[in-house]
Formats: sequence, C-alpha cells, structure tokens
Amino acid sequence: MIDLCLIGIGTGNPDHVTLQARAALCEAALVLVPRKGVGKEDLADLRHQILTACDSPARVVEFEMPLRDETLPYAVRVERWHDAIAERWSEIIAREDLSGPVALLVWGDPGLYDSTLRIAARLHPAPRLRVIPGITALQALTAAHAIPFNTINGAVTVTTGRRLRDHGWPEGAETLVVMLDGECSFTRLAPEGVHIWWGAYLGMAEQVLVSGALAQAAPQIIAKRAEARARHGWIMDTYLLRRQA
Amino acid sequence: MIDLCLIGIGTGNPDHVTLQARAALCEAALVLVPRKGVGKEDLADLRHQILTACDSPARVVEFEMPLRDETLPYAVRVERWHDAIAERWSEIIAREDLSGPVALLVWGDPGLYDSTLRIAARLHPAPRLRVIPGITALQALTAAHAIPFNTINGAVTVTTGRRLRDHGWPEGAETLVVMLDGECSFTRLAPEGVHIWWGAYLGMAEQVLVSGALAQAAPQIIAKRAEARARHGWIMDTYLLRRQA
Repeated sequence: MIDLCLIGIGTGNPDHVTLQARAALCEAALVLVPRKGVGKEDLADLRHQILTACDSPARVVEFEMPLRDETLPYAVRVERWHDAIAERWSEIIAREDLSGPVALLVWGDPGLYDSTLRIAARLHPAPRLRVIPGITALQALTAAHAIPFNTINGAVTVTTGRRLRDHGWPEGAETLVVMLDGECSFTRLAPEGVHIWWGAYLGMAEQVLVSGALAQAAPQIIAKRAEARARHGWIMDTYLLRRQA
Repeated sequence: MIDLCLIGIGTGNPDHVTLQARAALCEAALVLVPRKGVGKEDLADLRHQILTACDSPARVVEFEMPLRDETLPYAVRVERWHDAIAERWSEIIAREDLSGPVALLVWGDPGLYDSTLRIAARLHPAPRLRVIPGITALQALTAAHAIPFNTINGAVTVTTGRRLRDHGWPEGAETLVVMLDGECSFTRLAPEGVHIWWGAYLGMAEQVLVSGALAQAAPQIIAKRAEARARHGWIMDTYLLRRQA
C-alpha cells in the first residue's frame, strides 16, 4: 500500500512552512510537482525552493497539469479534470520503485478549496493518506491586515466568487470571506455599510493590500489587481467583507 | 513605540509552529505567558516547550489571567475581561526595559476566535502590531479526519456553540464548523441527514476523533468528551457538520 502525504505549505511565503511539514518532506521518497503552464512558473518554483530549503532527499518529478474542458458544464468539467490529474499521478507512481511516502505540496491547506483530497480519493488501490495542515489564505489575509476573522461570538461564511455572483450576500451573514474569485464579484453587491479587506500574494514579497469602505475601495482593488496580474502573469487573492451591524 | 507581535502557534502540537513564528520568537525581547489556573498548566507548559525548542533569548514573564465576572451580561463580561487583561499586559510592559518586540504566543491563529487582537487594541500608547498566522483548529480538524473543509464550490459557515444554541442551523448552510462549544450544542439539532466530524486535542498526542451520522456519533462524543475532560482537567474541541444535499 502506498503512503500518500498531502502537505499544506501556506500561501507562498516559504516561512509559512511548519516544522511538521518540513519533517514530512524529509521523510518523502517522491514529490510530485505540478507545472501549471506558461506565466505560472513562480508556483512550481516556490515548491522547489521549499524542498531545497528543507534539504529533502526525495526524488522530485514534475508533471504537466491537464487542461479543463471549458465546453463542459462546471460540475462535470471539475470531475473530469480530477480524473485526468489522478491518472497522471498514477502513471508516475507506477514507474517509481518507492522506498517511502509520496508527497504533494499543497498551496494553503489541503482541506480548503483545494482538489488534492478529491484527486487522492480516485487512486486505485487506495493509498494510506496523511494530511499535514497548512496556513491558509484566511489566516494570511487577517494577519496581513491585523484584523480578527470574526466579531465577538460572530459567525463567518467562507464562500466562493462563483457563489457570490450566483446567490448574492448569504441571508443573515455578517462576515464573508471570498475565495477563488477571478472576477471581482464584490462589484455585484450593494456597497452600503460594507467594509472590505482585500489582499493578493498574501505573505509573499509581492503582497498587495487594500481596505476600506467597499464603495471607495472597489475601484482601487480592480485597478491594483489588473496591474499586478499583468506584471506577474498570475494572481491569487482573497478578501473579507463585513457588514456593519 | 512598542512593537507587539502576536504569534499563532497552532493547536497544541509544537510542530505546528511555522518557520516564521520561530523566527519572530527569536527576535522577541519579552514574551508574556498567561497562566490559566489549576488544571490548565498544560497550556502554559506548551508555550514554554515551544520557547525552549526554538532557543528564544526572550525574557519570559508569566501572568495570572483575570477571572470573568459571570454575573455580568455576556457582552459586558467579555469587554471588562479584555480591559483587565490589557491592564496586566501594560503593567508588565511598563516594568521592562525593552530592547526588542514584545511577543504573545496565541493558540491556533490570532484572528480566529481569539481575544488577543482586541486586547492589543486597548493598549495606550498603541503598539506597532505584527500578526503571524498559525494553524487553526479548522485545519487541524480537517487534516486529522483527512476530509475537505468545503464541498466543490460550497460555502462553509464557521460559528460558535453559543450561536448554534441560540439560532439553530443557519438558513441555507450546508457545512458548519463549530468553535468554542463547551456544551455539545450539536444535541440541539435535528440529526437527520447530518454527518459530524469531531476532534479534541487536535494535533496533540492526546488527540481523540469521532465521526459518523450525527444520531449515532452524538452519544459517543458526549461520553468521550466527558471522560477526556475529567482525565486532562481541560479540553479544546471542534467539529464540522455537513448536511446531505
């Protein structure tokens, strides 16, 4: 039975790595590193930088990420894509003569808006699975702005840009954190009484932050986001919205 | 101006500490460690263990945590308690001849259901604040169970035991994560179609996990929780609830 270790590495700052993650990387025999295409080499490079820094003896194998078939409906498209990634992992693992665990370095945390657990569930035979928690964009965002995630005894809804566009502000919610939003979906909301804390490249040298009343901050965020994305070739950003009680 | 660094240390496993947290501890001149009373020495001991492991040169000063006045209404009680803690910090800081930052080690992450940022906001003059993100109970729970936090494109509501008791299952929510619940508030819910993943002492040697359909798992959790709490003198636990679509 294969040991598969999914290791949360934080949001792009190599110092987000925990002692536990570093130890797991040093125990791994094989590390699979996805290549996400032209303009996103930074993301693979960060993984190599982390592996080098912790002096991992693991063999590192890169693989090209399959493309999503954008002609399919969203749910089917995601399922097929996960199938295709699981096939690539299986092909590489089958070729290796393993003397220890297989590891994947997962941006943020393996549980939070990440596909790696779902891809791992497709492997046959099923691997023995270990998950190492990582610093998420939720914590990196609130730390960068030095703000609390929640109000006292308050609830927080963590959601996606797609859901915000399709369903609007969730009924009764006071605080929202929005993940996976490539379309500045905050522009669809009525801005009255809403404050936003936005951040991109959280924890990295390139970090950009904007906060303020949504009406004033929204155009600044749109401009900064477009400029940064053009300059780096990729962007990862997250934001927290809070409605005045 | 005083530099105050709030450092997330994870959920009790010394290996949850990040490289960034370790570096910040090594830069600190003074570390304030709360004593939370008889039976909770483990919590202060963990902080000392982390400080020793990273060979921090900081002076470590313990202080007794003030007690909450349980006769006051909840909101007032919390405000007064934060005032009292800020006073203790100020007294200690005023006595010290500081040559570097003051640091506090915060269980989990400083932004997530923690008072430290609100207490820091009470200090006069205002310190220069730095927040180092930490592994939260959310990630420690999903990692321990090797489950995703969210469904594909799904939202998650993070809430408290108190809110769950007062307001029930939030309208439209699919996944709930419940924090700060000392009363097994999941027993107030209609269990049909609800699955629970519960964990205590997450990431520690004492970790206890239970998962299953809520109707079957609830009595097991109640029994294990009572037994573990009696044995250790304290407990920290969290759970995730998911309703079948």
